[in-house]
Amino acid sequence: MAKNVGVLAMEIYFPPTCVQQEALETHDGASKGKYTIGLGQDCMAFCTEVEDVISMGLTAVTSLLEKYTIDPKQIGRFEVGSETVIDKSKSIKTFLMQIFEKCGNTDIEGVDSTNACYGGTAALFNCVNWVESSSWDGRYGLVVCTDSAVYAEGPARPTGGAAAIAMLIGPDAPIVFESKFRGSHMSHAYDFYKPNLASEYPVVDGKLSQTCYLMALDTCYKYFCYKYEKLEGKQFSISDADYIVFHSPYNKLVQKSFARLLFNDFIRNASSVDDIAKGKLSLFSNLTGDETYQSRDLEKVSQQVSKSLYDAKVQPTTLIPKQVGNMYTASLYAAFASLIHNKHSELAGKRVILFSYGSGLTSTMFSLRLHEGQHPFCLSNLATVMNVAGKLKWRHEFPPEKFVQTMKLMEHRYGAKDFVTSKDCGLLSPGTYYLTEVDSMYRRFYSKKDGDYTVCETGSLANGH
Amino acid sequence: MAKNVGVLAMEIYFPPTCVQQEALETHDGASKGKYTIGLGQDCMAFCTEVEDVISMGLTAVTSLLEKYTIDPKQIGRFEVGSETVIDKSKSIKTFLMQIFEKCGNTDIEGVDSTNACYGGTAALFNCVNWVESSSWDGRYGLVVCTDSAVYAEGPARPTGGAAAIAMLIGPDAPIVFESKFRGSHMSHAYDFYKPNLASEYPVVDGKLSQTCYLMALDTCYKYFCYKYEKLEGKQFSISDADYIVFHSPYNKLVQKSFARLLFNDFIRNASSVDDIAKGKLSLFSNLTGDETYQSRDLEKVSQQVSKSLYDAKVQPTTLIPKQVGNMYTASLYAAFASLIHNKHSELAGKRVILFSYGSGLTSTMFSLRLHEGQHPFCLSNLATVMNVAGKLKWRHEFPPEKFVQTMKLMEHRYGAKDFVTSKDCGLLSPGTYYLTEVDSMYRRFYSKKDGDYTVCETGSLANGH
Repeated sequence: MAKNVGVLAMEIYFPPTCVQQEALETHDGASKGKYTIGLGQDCMAFCTEVEDVISMGLTAVTSLLEKYTIDPKQIGRFEVGSETVIDKSKSIKTFLMQIFEKCGNTDIEGVDSTNACYGGTAALFNCVNWVESSSWDGRYGLVVCTDSAVYAEGPARPTGGAAAIAMLIGPDAPIVFESKFRGSHMSHAYDFYKPNLASEYPVVDGKLSQTCYLMALDTCYKYFCYKYEKLEGKQFSISDADYIVFHSPYNKLVQKSFARLLFNDFIRNASSVDDIAKGKLSLFSNLTGDETYQSRDLEKVSQQVSKSLYDAKVQPTTLIPKQVGNMYTASLYAAFASLIHNKHSELAGKRVILFSYGSGLTSTMFSLRLHEGQHPFCLSNLATVMNVAGKLKWRHEFPPEKFVQTMKLMEHRYGAKDFVTSKDCGLLSPGTYYLTEVDSMYRRFYSKKDGDYTVCETGSLANGH
Repeated sequence: MAKNVGVLAMEIYFPPTCVQQEALETHDGASKGKYTIGLGQDCMAFCTEVEDVISMGLTAVTSLLEKYTIDPKQIGRFEVGSETVIDKSKSIKTFLMQIFEKCGNTDIEGVDSTNACYGGTAALFNCVNWVESSSWDGRYGLVVCTDSAVYAEGPARPTGGAAAIAMLIGPDAPIVFESKFRGSHMSHAYDFYKPNLASEYPVVDGKLSQTCYLMALDTCYKYFCYKYEKLEGKQFSISDADYIVFHSPYNKLVQKSFARLLFNDFIRNASSVDDIAKGKLSLFSNLTGDETYQSRDLEKVSQQVSKSLYDAKVQPTTLIPKQVGNMYTASLYAAFASLIHNKHSELAGKRVILFSYGSGLTSTMFSLRLHEGQHPFCLSNLATVMNVAGKLKWRHEFPPEKFVQTMKLMEHRYGAKDFVTSKDCGLLSPGTYYLTEVDSMYRRFYSKKDGDYTVCETGSLANGH
């Protein structure tokens, strides 16, 4: 069996167009700090009419292959996680196959995995399992998480975002799965779903969604600890994790989640909880399970006592989710990318715990062990190639009015046919794919922006046969 | 690594409601034989307002677990293949989790895999890989393929169908994957897709879809033979397959496909082609690749010369697809189930080649090796439990007028909310789940028909948290 299977390389792409949450607060007439402190968000990226989950996927994959000089023929499995439906039958993967077809490689397993924000994790697990299975043919696996999160006008709108993340999978990786330490919780819930097929917007029960998320976190952590303890013969606590990465719909929920883990450790009488924290949390020992999800006081106190651990173990993972917003399937991996960006030189030997959540609901807590790796598949090069700081810096802030106007156009365009876009790629970086047309048969056409900002029409991708 | 991983057990469910293709021909004013000989179809199952892909999935899974007395806690991975979208974010898997939640098992990996009719194959490969990977925790995997194929009025309508198939996955199986023999072809095409999000009906280019299917078959076969020959050091031909199972949108395409494989063997100068066939096929040796897909004469001659091999290697796989219709993700496995039904006592030691195709497009040819197995996971018991003959016999034929009327109601119901169904489960067998209500929040409610035909309201499944 292939050994040390995991993530060899990563690339992230998010639209250069964004709106500041502070400006949005003012525009929406929301109380000051509602989005920035209440949600914990700084900025939100969004697709304009020239970008979508397919164009972002094309950009992320092409960029990863180019920057690591991977021949597309070396890819033996390629799968996509997404909850942004452009077609109900034809997978996003088949659109992205255009990259490989032109190099003569069509023998690539894998399709799309779907359940809300969890599909990327499912795709990643599938790809790792493939490398470890008897079906593996020695080539690389490739996973793309691509989503555009948009919400109807109202309280959920500032929790949008958009991004695509590509991950190359193989043996002897710098980011290795500790596959035996894993706890999942899957359940039937209506916290966030998309039953209105003609609309891009979800139906969301915000309060229920947060409770479902925290209950799933508790259950996954319980299973995770149980398996760890069974295999390792000692108790697990958050002290055994150097960093913890959470699926991040908005940062405030990540703060609450980490506090919740500490509260779990307190209940479990784990070593991670010091005496001061114990004293403060003991006031809540008698709450029932349900009450613990509702208690504002517990939320406040547990966040307070976990603050310094949060700063050490979680804060380094929050940059991109705070700056870009909820990227659905890409959110967890954008948080992980933030950690690599911030700490790449200190990560060798560290254990990182990740919590993936998709409404509806599916969730898993799993463990990664990091190694420096061998160039080009080493943590420092991963950080260099992703160039998170550069990508954040090169963005273009839209005033809220223009953002709202864009959302209106996008509403109109969702599921539509027979239109051409502005083809305006002035804001896009060279190498970025963009949508040019959807014809009367709903067939979609994309172009790639080349080196020069004014040359947009080269490298177009036609429709299929 | 776990050995001899594959399918331990299977269950199939299709709606008891069906329409005869011959009656439909008359009703539609089609020429006699257009559906029965032209398409090669006998009968078509369809969901009435009380059934959908979720109810069929619930029925198939529950029945499999009950008949094999599998404790739901023994399932460690459960995934669904489907192209029938009821919700664009919440997976079908999460609806089916209700079966496991009530037994206290929520630690079950896997989500939905999607690309047209191929999603079930993707789910199956994922599940087998999981058992062979370091993530495997010793429990069973479970795969469900569930789809309802419906078409707008017109020439494609008689190619509908509906079914769900559940497959239990684990080591030491009677149906073992020969995972090294596998060829995939994945490509960007618009042969059949569902871009009109508000409609259940696909956009289909019938002629293109058939050409894409046959081109994919050729390419998969090429890769399959290449890998076989590289590993085994000898040429592969259809003589090395005891049975060949094709994804079956309609039987005529299966006939053409097998003839196409023989033509491939002729071009490759393989031993499976006798001198008489060689003589007849040599008239077409000079056609270009494109011309071979268009030539009616080649189609006719190759079907003629492959007839006796078709009768031996393919005909035993065609029963359910001809009787039930296109079941999308379930079609290939319903064809395979037909083989087990027809030949279970003769299958030990045999090699079965399967060709899975999903428009858009994704396709794989793969190999299974069959063993008698140990009770209850043995081929004869698989046949007994599926009880294909009984299920076909117990069906209720609708006159075409009533079928058309049902399709009209279903069009109206697709994506709708705030309605109750008739709850009429008079035609359903005991143990069948059925839809009772979709509330104003699009939440779906199901009941299970119990032993007595008049007792319908017990065992209801409520909405999530």
